[in-house]
Amino acid sequence: MDQNKTTRKGRREGKRQSIPYSTIVRLTQYLRILDRLNSIGITMVSSNDLCEESRVNSFLVRKDLSYFGEFGTRGVGYNIAYLREEIAKILGLDVKRKLVIVGAGNLGTALAKYRGFRERGFELVGIFDSDPTKIGMRIDNLQVESIFKFDDFVRVHNGIDIGIIAVPAFSAQYVANTLLANNVKAVLNFAPIPIEVSENVIYQSVDLTTHLEILSFYLQDSNRKG
Amino acid sequence: MDQNKTTRKGRREGKRQSIPYSTIVRLTQYLRILDRLNSIGITMVSSNDLCEESRVNSFLVRKDLSYFGEFGTRGVGYNIAYLREEIAKILGLDVKRKLVIVGAGNLGTALAKYRGFRERGFELVGIFDSDPTKIGMRIDNLQVESIFKFDDFVRVHNGIDIGIIAVPAFSAQYVANTLLANNVKAVLNFAPIPIEVSENVIYQSVDLTTHLEILSFYLQDSNRKG
Repeated sequence: MDQNKTTRKGRREGKRQSIPYSTIVRLTQYLRILDRLNSIGITMVSSNDLCEESRVNSFLVRKDLSYFGEFGTRGVGYNIAYLREEIAKILGLDVKRKLVIVGAGNLGTALAKYRGFRERGFELVGIFDSDPTKIGMRIDNLQVESIFKFDDFVRVHNGIDIGIIAVPAFSAQYVANTLLANNVKAVLNFAPIPIEVSENVIYQSVDLTTHLEILSFYLQDSNRKG
Repeated sequence: MDQNKTTRKGRREGKRQSIPYSTIVRLTQYLRILDRLNSIGITMVSSNDLCEESRVNSFLVRKDLSYFGEFGTRGVGYNIAYLREEIAKILGLDVKRKLVIVGAGNLGTALAKYRGFRERGFELVGIFDSDPTKIGMRIDNLQVESIFKFDDFVRVHNGIDIGIIAVPAFSAQYVANTLLANNVKAVLNFAPIPIEVSENVIYQSVDLTTHLEILSFYLQDSNRKG
């Protein structure tokens, strides 16, 4: 993850926004751990176990959770169902978000089929492309629509919360401009190029190479030892 | 990102490994910024600009770079070409890594075509599937091969560094076992399910929902104000 305008925005706007970006990232991580523990029938988790599972040190875990109040009981730990619900609320996952994907190529299609989104309250309402051979194609229960009719779509759907950009680099800025012109509030960019958005838009860029670079570091490190 | 066995591994193994996981993540971020600055012809960057661009505070930027020696000149800043090269070396990107992708569905195909990988020294040498209708299919200059013949492939290629898992949840563990049985050193898992790997394997799991959850937090936050 890089280029998080969200963070800078966070720093600018008063008290609640002073929650560091890294805390938000870790909250999503805790949520995933709690989900897993919950799915195997565990009901309580100690602060130590949460540290162990998340590979985050105990000071940080406690600090992260302290931004939002007191969730745990000293010596007993956290009730998983309750903590899950609270973190989900903190992240705004109790509110349904309308999501569109622009780009019906392999990445866009993979994202459209990604089951995790709906589970978290993200509702994919449209998928768009500029390629006439793709428009009309079915992806699960949706039909690929023309990006040139995006304004009509947004009007019918009464606003869109999040737009995912999954187009080649050369059209990413055009797509971003189209999303912003139609008041899409947040943009997630998978195109391997930096794009410009206005300051009031929530923006994240995903670079898939980052993950390989991190593995590369640890590979090099293990080679050095032996 | 979650479940970074890499981090725990890092904590266990002596001095150089005590570099925090979060520093490694930020180094990949600095590298991307330096690349961008370099591509528009800028040759020097101040510590402050690096902070501004990365939205990381100046204390952390200096601390991150200090793990590896002294790169900058006080009052002048960093030479971009030099700093890029050093960070690339730190991350082991000066060494070619042999990469395979398992899963030739939409996500696997998108990853196979992702141009960023090769630019960073990751060489995609094979793509695999178990589906007979996919085996033999061409993706750029590669042909999809049978995962059941993976052991032959690894022998011919004299070892594989990184395996990317891009299969549905139900077959992810099987694929992981196949990779590990053939001594693949590092695994990047895109399947939306936790998988078990032995302690000596470098492992990262990518959950694409994380990015949406982070946007959701900032969306909620902006709604509250406005």
